[in-house]
Amino acid sequence: MVIVMSPGSSAEAIDEVVNAITDAGGEAFVSAGVARTIIGVVGATDVLESLEARDLTQHPSVAEVLRVTSPYKLVSKENHTQTSTVMVGNAPIGPSSVTLIAGPCAVETPAQTLEAAQMAVQAGATILRGGAFKPRTSPYAFQGLGAAGLEILADVGREVGLPIVTEVVDARDVDIVAEHADMLQIGTRNMQNFALLQAAGAAGKPVLLKRGLTATYDEWLMAAEYIAQRGNLDIVLCERGIRTYEPSVRNTLDVTAVPVMHDLSHLPIIIDPSHAAGRRDLVLPLARAGLGAGADGLIVDVHPHPEQALCDGPQALVGEAMDELAQLMATLPALLGRTQNAR
Amino acid sequence: MVIVMSPGSSAEAIDEVVNAITDAGGEAFVSAGVARTIIGVVGATDVLESLEARDLTQHPSVAEVLRVTSPYKLVSKENHTQTSTVMVGNAPIGPSSVTLIAGPCAVETPAQTLEAAQMAVQAGATILRGGAFKPRTSPYAFQGLGAAGLEILADVGREVGLPIVTEVVDARDVDIVAEHADMLQIGTRNMQNFALLQAAGAAGKPVLLKRGLTATYDEWLMAAEYIAQRGNLDIVLCERGIRTYEPSVRNTLDVTAVPVMHDLSHLPIIIDPSHAAGRRDLVLPLARAGLGAGADGLIVDVHPHPEQALCDGPQALVGEAMDELAQLMATLPALLGRTQNAR
Amino acid sequence: MVIVMSPGSSAEAIDEVVNAITDAGGEAFVSAGVARTIIGVVGATDVLESLEARDLTQHPSVAEVLRVTSPYKLVSKENHTQTSTVMVGNAPIGPSSVTLIAGPCAVETPAQTLEAAQMAVQAGATILRGGAFKPRTSPYAFQGLGAAGLEILADVGREVGLPIVTEVVDARDVDIVAEHADMLQIGTRNMQNFALLQAAGAAGKPVLLKRGLTATYDEWLMAAEYIAQRGNLDIVLCERGIRTYEPSVRNTLDVTAVPVMHDLSHLPIIIDPSHAAGRRDLVLPLARAGLGAGADGLIVDVHPHPEQALCDGPQALVGEAMDELAQLMATLPALLGRTQNAR
Amino acid sequence: MVIVMSPGSSAEAIDEVVNAITDAGGEAFVSAGVARTIIGVVGATDVLESLEARDLTQHPSVAEVLRVTSPYKLVSKENHTQTSTVMVGNAPIGPSSVTLIAGPCAVETPAQTLEAAQMAVQAGATILRGGAFKPRTSPYAFQGLGAAGLEILADVGREVGLPIVTEVVDARDVDIVAEHADMLQIGTRNMQNFALLQAAGAAGKPVLLKRGLTATYDEWLMAAEYIAQRGNLDIVLCERGIRTYEPSVRNTLDVTAVPVMHDLSHLPIIIDPSHAAGRRDLVLPLARAGLGAGADGLIVDVHPHPEQALCDGPQALVGEAMDELAQLMATLPALLGRTQNAR
Ligand SMILES: C=C(OP(=O)(O)O)C(=O)O
Ligand SMILES: C=C(OP(=O)(O)O)C(=O)O
Ligand SMILES: C=C(OP(=O)(O)O)C(=O)O
Ligand SMILES: C=C(OP(=O)(O)O)C(=O)O
Repeated sequence: MVIVMSPGSSAEAIDEVVNAITDAGGEAFVSAGVARTIIGVVGATDVLESLEARDLTQHPSVAEVLRVTSPYKLVSKENHTQTSTVMVGNAPIGPSSVTLIAGPCAVETPAQTLEAAQMAVQAGATILRGGAFKPRTSPYAFQGLGAAGLEILADVGREVGLPIVTEVVDARDVDIVAEHADMLQIGTRNMQNFALLQAAGAAGKPVLLKRGLTATYDEWLMAAEYIAQRGNLDIVLCERGIRTYEPSVRNTLDVTAVPVMHDLSHLPIIIDPSHAAGRRDLVLPLARAGLGAGADGLIVDVHPHPEQALCDGPQALVGEAMDELAQLMATLPALLGRTQNAR
Repeated sequence: MVIVMSPGSSAEAIDEVVNAITDAGGEAFVSAGVARTIIGVVGATDVLESLEARDLTQHPSVAEVLRVTSPYKLVSKENHTQTSTVMVGNAPIGPSSVTLIAGPCAVETPAQTLEAAQMAVQAGATILRGGAFKPRTSPYAFQGLGAAGLEILADVGREVGLPIVTEVVDARDVDIVAEHADMLQIGTRNMQNFALLQAAGAAGKPVLLKRGLTATYDEWLMAAEYIAQRGNLDIVLCERGIRTYEPSVRNTLDVTAVPVMHDLSHLPIIIDPSHAAGRRDLVLPLARAGLGAGADGLIVDVHPHPEQALCDGPQALVGEAMDELAQLMATLPALLGRTQNAR
Repeated sequence: MVIVMSPGSSAEAIDEVVNAITDAGGEAFVSAGVARTIIGVVGATDVLESLEARDLTQHPSVAEVLRVTSPYKLVSKENHTQTSTVMVGNAPIGPSSVTLIAGPCAVETPAQTLEAAQMAVQAGATILRGGAFKPRTSPYAFQGLGAAGLEILADVGREVGLPIVTEVVDARDVDIVAEHADMLQIGTRNMQNFALLQAAGAAGKPVLLKRGLTATYDEWLMAAEYIAQRGNLDIVLCERGIRTYEPSVRNTLDVTAVPVMHDLSHLPIIIDPSHAAGRRDLVLPLARAGLGAGADGLIVDVHPHPEQALCDGPQALVGEAMDELAQLMATLPALLGRTQNAR
Repeated sequence: MVIVMSPGSSAEAIDEVVNAITDAGGEAFVSAGVARTIIGVVGATDVLESLEARDLTQHPSVAEVLRVTSPYKLVSKENHTQTSTVMVGNAPIGPSSVTLIAGPCAVETPAQTLEAAQMAVQAGATILRGGAFKPRTSPYAFQGLGAAGLEILADVGREVGLPIVTEVVDARDVDIVAEHADMLQIGTRNMQNFALLQAAGAAGKPVLLKRGLTATYDEWLMAAEYIAQRGNLDIVLCERGIRTYEPSVRNTLDVTAVPVMHDLSHLPIIIDPSHAAGRRDLVLPLARAGLGAGADGLIVDVHPHPEQALCDGPQALVGEAMDELAQLMATLPALLGRTQNAR
């Protein structure tokens, strides 16, 4: 059950509804969106029935009470037919723009991060990416600079005037990451780290949720629902390639996810052609494919000196490929009937 | 080893080279292309060494002798750096056009086939598709009209003025299919039916080779090589979706195949968004994704009455979706810097 | 619809039933089993209804008329609750034995084949395997000796006193293979080569049907149904590993297939630990796992000189591993409550 | 680099070696095993070179200094050729026993847990399992009783005299779980939750590490290495089925993992036939298959009233199946040359 409050409902009105729910034995999850507040209700069937009997639509601030039948409720398109626009700092991700997020895979040094950020700006990025906590398959690989990396990224973001997105891999780090970042990233390996999803959902910052390596669409939306349940509907999905049998690429970008997710959910969806293929030469073709399929944006790795990168150098754009990316961002959004995000 | 003959080499010159190869204990496969003849040599290392010692470049009609190191030789891009253009009747498939192949999944009746063909023409198709021999998972499903279906399709092709492509599923049927069709289609289930590949390679008609359900890129190119070895380089690859874990679509279109195949091979590649998703609503988004990735064309199912279709009705385009397809064909090729194929 | 004839029904009685079916517009597939004849009926719903109205149970030789609801009918367990025993020459494959099929992956020379056959006999094999027509991913790999290989294998089989099983890859070769072999093998790449399945079904010899590389259980049983429809119920399923993401083995043996197939179908099922793993060191552990799961037998590659093998040498058993296999065959069947097949 | 200390090395000796490592700029991970202490060294190439130059073998308590070449070091078999025995309370898991872990999927009530534990004991279990923190795909599904569940499980374990294993899903819960449990379980969804792996590694209790749904063997061993690096070598691997395309079972048990893991690593490996298939009727056949492949034990779901289970009822053993399991535990270990674990 989901309760949609009228726009401008007061904190008291919201409290009254929450109390009604908890009195009936249910749990209430309050999602304070930009336009209005949504209250998700979780509980056994008898709880829901008793709440229905009490008819919360009688409450003056309740706009609608919905029984949602899809397994995901708050992120479903059933009661929210338009794709949402999620604001990251002052940069929108949604149906009327094509948003470019770019930056280094990992924050290594202030100089490298600044150079990469300047490359990102020049290509048309409106959000800066960069990893401080890196989830690495091997414990012997570079694990990121941690808190120091967060500070470098935040400084560089301020310097170039872009909001920042960065990955969080441990629920215990959510607070410190949320202090520095404008958007929290949940990586592919953590898509079903439910404790982390819940902590990120409660942090008050938009979340970029990457798809698990072999997750189904339903599993992915269920993961988003874990975030939404903590009161946060500012979620952007990110398709980043799935595991297949093809050995010549790291993963296989699943463009079908784009129209299907737009059909099932109101969340915007972007694609990550860099982590998908793991190969620089495929980033631009895959970016065009993703936008052709209707993606709301791109997240792309760039690096001033990929051959020295501590992480995923072979996929980082540099040189001419950056000009091609800038060209794509300068022309494609208009062709797709979307306004490019002016900075 | 591959021997490239000079343009206009005589039949005698070709015979001389072939004899030199067989004398040395090798096997020669002659590929008489439009522009020039290519002779593939297969043999053990000592055979190849003895041929090298004989230095066939001395022969006046031999333009080049190439030792190819990739596992596929005749279809590799190593010695043939431009994407080829394959002519199907008078319709090109290649780098300077976006070719639309459309028609019914299965030929059912003359009337249905004609209606579907007219829909195809209107949308901008330059080649007509239609299945007469249908490979069906269940022996109790409609298996196609067979030879009678071939005749219907050929008649309709003549009536609307389009060359036709149709699937062949049995090496024993290659002759009769080649008699009627302008292009032979090898289906996903038969990608490693090597006897069929060889028979199709010897039939003197271009071949559309669909990718196996979970085939790697190398396995796919090896299958193409089986065709090429029989003297036929007029091969078009078709990406039609791979098996993944996602239950809400039949298969998952792998757009990465497009740039990778263009990188590895000189064969053109088209995509089949209809068989990939198995869902009408996804055909157009996937078509745009495939063309964004650089595909040389599309093959699309259309049906005048999908609800009555004997095969794959849910994926057949009809009504407004056809207008959208026509619109896409009228505008997208130019945007991609390709000339739409005028009829 | 499936019509089960009474034991000992005359040819005339069978003809009468077939005529009744074709008169009603249906197609009849006669399966003359050891004990009794089964007639499969294929046709549209109205055909089946008209046949039902005629009530064939009135015919004195008709024992039963069954409407089968599973997608596969003749191979389903629904009307045939015991696992069948398939005789290959004088060697049974079925629920009361553990049958060992062994021999070289490919027939290379008479001497190599004889040596391998003697190794097979010593380990307890009651059927000899050996490939004459080899389906190879690359057209440049050894494709088998063809007809000459068949003759070598048949000669060796006679010499050591074992019936033989060998692969057929082309419907046009079914006759010549059936002339020499006691059992036809359909390989993993041809599991959905429907023309080949039908030809093999009509050849009058038992068929060993390997599972496709990523086939579902239903697709596999449907492939078996294509064979059964041609009147041949002497089918043995063979699980030989499925494609997974693990790079250190060629394929992954799916032991779950064994109990599930025994649950869905009356066909016996054996496992091929050699082609599954592609590694000699894993053949015995996987053989034990397969038998633990309830498999009715094993098919195993052996070679006197694996380092010289023209095909799949790394998986061929030799030396001590053969003793271990013999030991397993001497003890395990009794532990499993099965009689080892005495020769 | 891995430094193996002589048996009985003093705490001072260990400190001296650790100091030498950190002085050189490396990180040291101390693993105090039963027999001897192992110190893993992580650091850049120059750190390792400088340490090599210092030649730690000169230290009187250093038995060996090993440069390990496999990507996992502490869990590799390279320097530890025998399979380890991990003690869980007084129950061994290792090469000389077949250990049965059994209990309810989720702890629901004291009565249900006690009944399930008594069933487990009767079948021969020496360790009790039960989930208090349940990782569920949907946020609307039963998430386990949490801390209250831990207490129930610990009480029941004491009552029936079995050590207990239970899952931990959040690094912040490791302490409380370690307080109650004799072994920590890391679930399939958390195999690459590196923060959780590290926290579990530092908790001083043995760890049961389930394989990720589509993890490769290397990724799995790398995850184990994250645990080992925190000084804990008491790790047991658990194969619990991988994701495949087969819809009639939940997952597909990969028995090949058993011999391959025994080949690559010294860690014991058990199988979970319950979570693999998700079907009660397949638990026993898969258990036999896994033991046939050489598994060191089983973990099995049992429930007194599966039809009322809050989690995974369809896979829980009950009734006759329990007798069959008891029978298997009473006879199979001896046949496999292993002593059944007497309680
Ligand atoms: C690690 C990253 O991505 P993923 O989680 O998709 O692998 C990343 O974007 O830095
Ligand atoms: C059957 C067809 O396609 P595929 O082989 O890709 O399934 C078809 O195009 O008609
Ligand atoms: C080629 C063979 O097997 P598969 O078809 O299982 O690969 C074989 O058994 O020789
Ligand atoms: C959830 C469990 O298993 P898995 O992590 O293998 O799904 C379990 O054993 O309770």
